[in-house]
Amino acid sequence: MKKLHQALLERFNIVFSQQELLETAFTHTSYANEHRLLKISHNERLEFLGDAVLQLIISQYLYSKYPKKPEGDLSKLRSMIVREESLAGFARDCQFDQYIKLGKGEEKSGGRERDTILGDLFEAFLGALLLDKDVEAVKDFLYQVMIPKVEAGDFERVTDYKTKLQELLQVNGDVDIDYQVVAESGPAHAKRFEVAVLVNGRTLGTGKGRSKKLAEQEAAKRAVEKGNY
Amino acid sequence: MKKLHQALLERFNIVFSQQELLETAFTHTSYANEHRLLKISHNERLEFLGDAVLQLIISQYLYSKYPKKPEGDLSKLRSMIVREESLAGFARDCQFDQYIKLGKGEEKSGGRERDTILGDLFEAFLGALLLDKDVEAVKDFLYQVMIPKVEAGDFERVTDYKTKLQELLQVNGDVDIDYQVVAESGPAHAKRFEVAVLVNGRTLGTGKGRSKKLAEQEAAKRAVEKGNY
Repeated sequence: MKKLHQALLERFNIVFSQQELLETAFTHTSYANEHRLLKISHNERLEFLGDAVLQLIISQYLYSKYPKKPEGDLSKLRSMIVREESLAGFARDCQFDQYIKLGKGEEKSGGRERDTILGDLFEAFLGALLLDKDVEAVKDFLYQVMIPKVEAGDFERVTDYKTKLQELLQVNGDVDIDYQVVAESGPAHAKRFEVAVLVNGRTLGTGKGRSKKLAEQEAAKRAVEKGNY
Repeated sequence: MKKLHQALLERFNIVFSQQELLETAFTHTSYANEHRLLKISHNERLEFLGDAVLQLIISQYLYSKYPKKPEGDLSKLRSMIVREESLAGFARDCQFDQYIKLGKGEEKSGGRERDTILGDLFEAFLGALLLDKDVEAVKDFLYQVMIPKVEAGDFERVTDYKTKLQELLQVNGDVDIDYQVVAESGPAHAKRFEVAVLVNGRTLGTGKGRSKKLAEQEAAKRAVEKGNY
């Protein structure tokens, strides 16, 4: 935990007053269950709180960033940004996966790389930060970690290209669109995927990304841009 | 709108700096659509924001109120508190239904009494308050309007008694449980319902409430308490 404190200070200038909150945020249920007699708290309640503060901050951001977008678009965008897979990515970016305490079984079965566990961890951390400090502190943190990627358009893309490709292709009647992982590399916290999009068996584009979905979008984007169906 | 300003000031000590936000919060899409040329904003975007700030404040409240409840219970409780029907009730409590601007068709078909419209209005108002002021201001307002009813246990009851009654009755095999509205009274913003719970055709209890669901719970509660199945 000492390393985590140091990392939070150096990278985000965050110092927790209530150490036990930070401990709890990084304790998975599987660990707490294995040490039942010690009555250790796990991070599920903090996740409940973190989810809510995350939703608010992203909502405020989207509301002011897109003054013309209707509510439905804002909701879609928000759900893409806060979905488990993307939160897990942010947890990895922050190297939070190094510090989570897991039960033995969970550790063995690869829990440290699992999106559900890491996404929940990210939310639990936000919940702990909210309780230790305030909404502003969570906002500061998210504006360092998440918002730059949102600004870069990493999330707007998500529905766009796969849907767009499908729409373009369906003009010519039914087609068979298939996405296949062609390569996977890098360590758990910095995985890279390469995906190909095949239309009626022919590769129309390939794309890379830190998740399968992002790589699929990249591939669809290439296919759309190439425009040679 | 002048009356609304006065009501907000007198009842909640709220004065909006940005009048247009308040106007927007009280403008339903149906009204904006009817006056398309005037380019009036409607309240859907504010509702998006209001929903998020509401979730956060209720989450924080529940988290500290119930230090032992697991995340699943907190989530259930939260969804009961922020469900449309209950938000519509709060909108009526604040007499917000008097001030919403509706299109003619919507007005004719009883939109002013509709839970969806009033629930959305309540959230939009919270969104406007958040933008005009801050999270604290929304919290102050909710602690006047909502939290006292939550404290009174109005929401904890909700799943409890209907489920409890069912569990108690099913011990004796299959039973037919039916809830019937036996009376409805009061003006739109202060409706009262009376509901009877019938088990295999026999009335086991009756209950009153400001919504059908609350009256059903009341009726189920009476039946459970009577304990004579």
